[in-house]
Amino acid sequence: MFASEQMDQEAVARLFTESRLLAGPVLDDDRRMRGIVAADDIVDVVEQEASEDIQKFGGVEALDGPYLRIRFWQMVQKRAGWLTVLFVGEMLTANAMGYFEEEIARAVVLALFIPLIISSGGKSGSQATTLVIRAIALGEIRLRDWWRVNYREFSTGLALGGVLAIIGMARILLWQVIWRPYGPHFMVITFTVACSLVGFMLFGTLAGSMLPFVLSRVGLDPASASAPFVATLVDVTGLLVYFTIARTILKGTLL
Amino acid sequence: MFASEQMDQEAVARLFTESRLLAGPVLDDDRRMRGIVAADDIVDVVEQEASEDIQKFGGVEALDGPYLRIRFWQMVQKRAGWLTVLFVGEMLTANAMGYFEEEIARAVVLALFIPLIISSGGKSGSQATTLVIRAIALGEIRLRDWWRVNYREFSTGLALGGVLAIIGMARILLWQVIWRPYGPHFMVITFTVACSLVGFMLFGTLAGSMLPFVLSRVGLDPASASAPFVATLVDVTGLLVYFTIARTILKGTLL
Repeated sequence: MFASEQMDQEAVARLFTESRLLAGPVLDDDRRMRGIVAADDIVDVVEQEASEDIQKFGGVEALDGPYLRIRFWQMVQKRAGWLTVLFVGEMLTANAMGYFEEEIARAVVLALFIPLIISSGGKSGSQATTLVIRAIALGEIRLRDWWRVNYREFSTGLALGGVLAIIGMARILLWQVIWRPYGPHFMVITFTVACSLVGFMLFGTLAGSMLPFVLSRVGLDPASASAPFVATLVDVTGLLVYFTIARTILKGTLL
Repeated sequence: MFASEQMDQEAVARLFTESRLLAGPVLDDDRRMRGIVAADDIVDVVEQEASEDIQKFGGVEALDGPYLRIRFWQMVQKRAGWLTVLFVGEMLTANAMGYFEEEIARAVVLALFIPLIISSGGKSGSQATTLVIRAIALGEIRLRDWWRVNYREFSTGLALGGVLAIIGMARILLWQVIWRPYGPHFMVITFTVACSLVGFMLFGTLAGSMLPFVLSRVGLDPASASAPFVATLVDVTGLLVYFTIARTILKGTLL
């Protein structure tokens, strides 16, 4: 076993876990020995990489030191970057909702389920992106596997959407039986919410699982597709889908 | 250097990275040698722990094997668990919004900014929880440091909320100058959105950073406070705060 100077850290870590050796030579392109790498160096590297990956997932730039030692303004700066970018992106939700302001005014009930529906899509997207990025990092998935992942996530998204849609319908119908808050058109509302849930979950898993591949393909780190980024993407596009579904289904009854 | 049978994996990993040894004895309570642990075992463990932590952060139960090998229904089951729990929790947002249905009907403009505001709070909560959980795992923060973290997150939350509030106000005023979509009361609306943003961001960072401590205190794994869980908590409580702020500020003008 030997490590070459071109290998990245993940690959060297994999070499060590597979070979069960404690140290190995590092060779250059001409197979001359340039140094030695030992398993305890790798522990450091793996811990550090994991921290960085985890912080990226949480939507923070990796910190340069222990939490309590970092100066206040540096901490704010590290966190404000991504937050600002995502905030500006998320502003499009206000545009999307403004576009359907008339529909909301006529059927306020539509607005009640927006946080529920968009957050579900965002969460299924976070799950998918987390699984795919980790699988890429560990070498379980290669770029050319994208269509297999796509196929898997399509069926998983449908199944998960189905589960949540059933729970959502049960909730609305139960409330309707007890308190009747949704008026005479409650069946259409239930149907709209259920359809939107399935659509959102499907869209979330597909967007979340494909984004790391797209980023890899254009030469970026797939882990940049952090969960909050996927959630923002799904929020904005999803709202447009929700109101389009609502408008189609509710035409002639509520709208 | 030696490892004792009682040490957890993170502590053993730390021993290795600090001592720079490649192998060491494992002792029992009477300091008799029970075996040997080598640095390459630690690489495995650290990689695996990191995968589990990352998956928890994404709101998925840790998978038992490579992504493409897991059977379809097992995959759905692993992902449906958390999603369903969070979905049921998030349903309270529909209750919260239903409670303020009259206000929304009178001022639809209030609904337009809901996705923007609640998602920002959720994201700042995810960031805080990510940083704190990782710092606890690496031994940078102890349980008794909670008040120092609380103090830090309070000021960080205020600063981050301030940044987003300024951007948010700029966006609303710019739109108002160009398209005038918010009517004559646009200044009160701007003010409401800005206050809510600061409140949400503050609440998000505090909830996100304190939850891991609370979980640790009652004997649960702090990493169970996954980012999606914090986001759901902030969504529900935050909506109530948003409408309460809105009702107070807008009384006599829009409401």
